Amino acid sequence: MSVDGLSINLATVREQWGFAAAVDGCLRHGITAIAPWREQIAKIGLAEASRIVHQNNLHLTGLCRGGFFPAATAEKRSAALDDNRRAVDEAAELGADCLVLVVGGLAENSRDIVAARQMVADGLDALLPHARACNVPLAIEPLHPMYAADRACVNTLGQALDMCELLGEGVGVAIDVYHVWWDPDLAAQIARAGKMNAILAHHICDWLVPTRDMLTDRGMMGDGVIDLPAIRRMVEAAGGTPKQEVEIFSAQNWWLKPGDEVLKACIDRYENCCQSDSPA
Amino acid sequence: MSVDGLSINLATVREQWGFAAAVDGCLRHGITAIAPWREQIAKIGLAEASRIVHQNNLHLTGLCRGGFFPAATAEKRSAALDDNRRAVDEAAELGADCLVLVVGGLAENSRDIVAARQMVADGLDALLPHARACNVPLAIEPLHPMYAADRACVNTLGQALDMCELLGEGVGVAIDVYHVWWDPDLAAQIARAGKMNAILAHHICDWLVPTRDMLTDRGMMGDGVIDLPAIRRMVEAAGGTPKQEVEIFSAQNWWLKPGDEVLKACIDRYENCCQSDSPA
Repeated sequence: MSVDGLSINLATVREQWGFAAAVDGCLRHGITAIAPWREQIAKIGLAEASRIVHQNNLHLTGLCRGGFFPAATAEKRSAALDDNRRAVDEAAELGADCLVLVVGGLAENSRDIVAARQMVADGLDALLPHARACNVPLAIEPLHPMYAADRACVNTLGQALDMCELLGEGVGVAIDVYHVWWDPDLAAQIARAGKMNAILAHHICDWLVPTRDMLTDRGMMGDGVIDLPAIRRMVEAAGGTPKQEVEIFSAQNWWLKPGDEVLKACIDRYENCCQSDSPA
Repeated sequence: MSVDGLSINLATVREQWGFAAAVDGCLRHGITAIAPWREQIAKIGLAEASRIVHQNNLHLTGLCRGGFFPAATAEKRSAALDDNRRAVDEAAELGADCLVLVVGGLAENSRDIVAARQMVADGLDALLPHARACNVPLAIEPLHPMYAADRACVNTLGQALDMCELLGEGVGVAIDVYHVWWDPDLAAQIARAGKMNAILAHHICDWLVPTRDMLTDRGMMGDGVIDLPAIRRMVEAAGGTPKQEVEIFSAQNWWLKPGDEVLKACIDRYENCCQSDSPA
């Protein structure tokens, strides 16, 4: 088996490596697809990051991340929009498949999740012309409902696709198994996303039992309870063939291990636990 | 304002008081509606608990809890069913409005959430004849998706109502704001539940930001981000008038305070943060 279908989200090794070292690590293991974070790009500088990406013919399965549209004042929402436009520019310069959007939760001091969702729709609508002009698809990433208050008020694939339908061309979804595996409507919504040509990214990791921290206790594929082959089958049946991008926040485990060891585990688990014909 | 519409789920003071002391505490504060847990009943004995309930004309807004249907073997599923039948008997003896069901997550060593959901449906179907014979409504409590693996694979109100429709008479839902507040389909599904006469219970607490523990860091109403008046309006508009039952698991805060102080806070917040016309 090859690692052609594998991408490494650089958050997975963010505690071990900066951007350049992470790229070197991936290349050492034959991995040529990555998804960096803007902070990682900023540290080395966009020009140098772009040089590394293009010189090595790296495939960027996404740039993380834009979003965080809701805010209490028009001024703050406008500032968020400006920052999102810069994120689009960076994604364009790096040639990323999409800009991944964590849309944001409630505005400050607000309990109005309906209003927050409207601010997200408005922000996306305002961002889209620039994204289209730059040929950067926007990928709404529905986040697990446990992040609804503080990270993303778009919490199901169905809700994200409803937004995509209203917004039109240039926007789709990032399907992260961690956020959607529980959804009773998952199969139907992945099929719908396929019909809409809206599957822009497929992120993988695993849900650990118990989960000891809501943010930084994600598992390596195979160590948790997500039926990864089943979800991959849904994606493939929907006509989606995005690379599988490993994104693991793991403060107590994987972030403490040498980066090469983490990448080896990613490859091993990708090959053995994540294929549509892997054992459940 | 009176506390007529308020019920105290005894988990809220479980670290401070056993059943009898909790009842005394509630009565001291003019509260005559409670929802006990089976463990609390078992400790004092069903006969004595029943005597206390009936002698004081207590209104039981629910008995917590039955459920946990999925299991790896038929033998274990049968044992779970037997235990659920005993829970129905206890709810009948105590005159509870309903038996609250936390339906259970994945079976042991399984990643098949579709199969788990079928085991829940099958378990409910098998339990219903006895529940109907005892006049004990079964209340499916959809739990927050963060509990899908280990506590409940029914994770949205819509999913619970779909089950209710298939099962027929004698089963409804417990709407706990903690579990459903994030749901983009919440208003529509509460309205649907009303039309089905399926609203059996309404639990309240709050979602804290940050949430430091997935199990035991629930907030007192008003201390978090849930728009409690908005959800109460949805329930009332749906024709539901269940009492609002305070259920707070709070290892770091409320469980450490004197029970009387907790009850005072419950009453204060109930009066000021939880009415359909309370400020948002």
